[in-house]
Amino acid sequence: MSVSLVGAGPGDPELITVGGLARVRAAELLVYDRLVSAELVAEASCELVARDDLAQEEVNALLVREGRRRFVVRLKGGDPFLFGRGGEEALALAGAGIPFEVIPGVSALTAVPAAAGIPVTHRGAASSVTAFAAHDVETLDADALAGAPGTLVAFMGLAGLARLAERLIAAGKPASTPAAVVSQGTTERQRAVTAPLGAVARAAEGLPTPALVVIGDVVAVAGELARARSAAA
Amino acid sequence: MSVSLVGAGPGDPELITVGGLARVRAAELLVYDRLVSAELVAEASCELVARDDLAQEEVNALLVREGRRRFVVRLKGGDPFLFGRGGEEALALAGAGIPFEVIPGVSALTAVPAAAGIPVTHRGAASSVTAFAAHDVETLDADALAGAPGTLVAFMGLAGLARLAERLIAAGKPASTPAAVVSQGTTERQRAVTAPLGAVARAAEGLPTPALVVIGDVVAVAGELARARSAAA
Repeated sequence: MSVSLVGAGPGDPELITVGGLARVRAAELLVYDRLVSAELVAEASCELVARDDLAQEEVNALLVREGRRRFVVRLKGGDPFLFGRGGEEALALAGAGIPFEVIPGVSALTAVPAAAGIPVTHRGAASSVTAFAAHDVETLDADALAGAPGTLVAFMGLAGLARLAERLIAAGKPASTPAAVVSQGTTERQRAVTAPLGAVARAAEGLPTPALVVIGDVVAVAGELARARSAAA
Repeated sequence: MSVSLVGAGPGDPELITVGGLARVRAAELLVYDRLVSAELVAEASCELVARDDLAQEEVNALLVREGRRRFVVRLKGGDPFLFGRGGEEALALAGAGIPFEVIPGVSALTAVPAAAGIPVTHRGAASSVTAFAAHDVETLDADALAGAPGTLVAFMGLAGLARLAERLIAAGKPASTPAAVVSQGTTERQRAVTAPLGAVARAAEGLPTPALVVIGDVVAVAGELARARSAAA
């Protein structure tokens, strides 16, 4: 048999791909992450395993063991190959000779800012975007990030946001740079705050995770959209 | 009525989202890009407009005019808000008081490297990724790109690839950095080449567009996967 590594998308169950949903419905075993919506898990009519209590090595071993004898779908939040550790699972499966495929998903990278009215690239504002994992702020190359010419998008950046902003500003990013935090983006519980980089950590206090941090002039497009709508109303 | 800005995904028609496909099927007018697959356009049962002969301002005007009186779906390759100019269309619609929504899509950013076995982030190889538009190589900030700590992904980078590689190497990116070009990724016509940055332009000669250029240690994961598969076979 085989394993399908499927991206579930950013939260809204409607944002899984057509191919991904077909895999979930055909699964003989579904191994899913905590962040995957309950609606998508409910599309499977098979045995379910929530992976949250398993270490990555245990997930790899489970996929190899079960993938030998039935069709296993590994349903991951967002995209399997962007902060999804799908590459590690793919290597484990390849090494064990288990056939597998990767069905990409809509990443939070674009979908979550979009749900708050923010395009991560926009003419005149940014023609590049850097996405980075910010769960360990002290290890980041703040100089490189502050010098990146386009939009910055931090995954797992809410807990350390005050320190992240401090490090970016110390490395030369203006404290006035527009920034936003979008919590539980694309779901019914979505909340977003916008503030200059120097004040965004305080503005975002108390927001629940998962949250995406967006830094750059593109954040101002959300305000432009809101003003254009009010003017037209 | 209203306008839905929908991401069609990277090429494979199965990679549109469930929500995106529902919009295409409900459309009263479909305005689509050249890169959108014929299978997806065929899902619409309404009047069709191929946008390729229209300037961006003409597209904006068309969406505003038609969006006043019927349900218009603007179907764009990849994701509307990552090199998709969706922000410009959104601003035009907001300014005209036309209700609109954005349905994100799977971006080539992750899906096209994935189709060639490359995760854009991978433990031990890259914990960040910078995506940039490379149609005008001379205007790029080569120092910032060469100094970015993670994976580089160039959209529209094939035509100027020799010069792009030259500028990155001159700015300090090692010529030995693994690189790949994936042409027509996720479609049946996909072709990929892998070579060190200093040799990748020559290796990619003659490949058709659209093509994505991936630069960084993550490119080596594709080789690891291939070797693991052979060893297990």
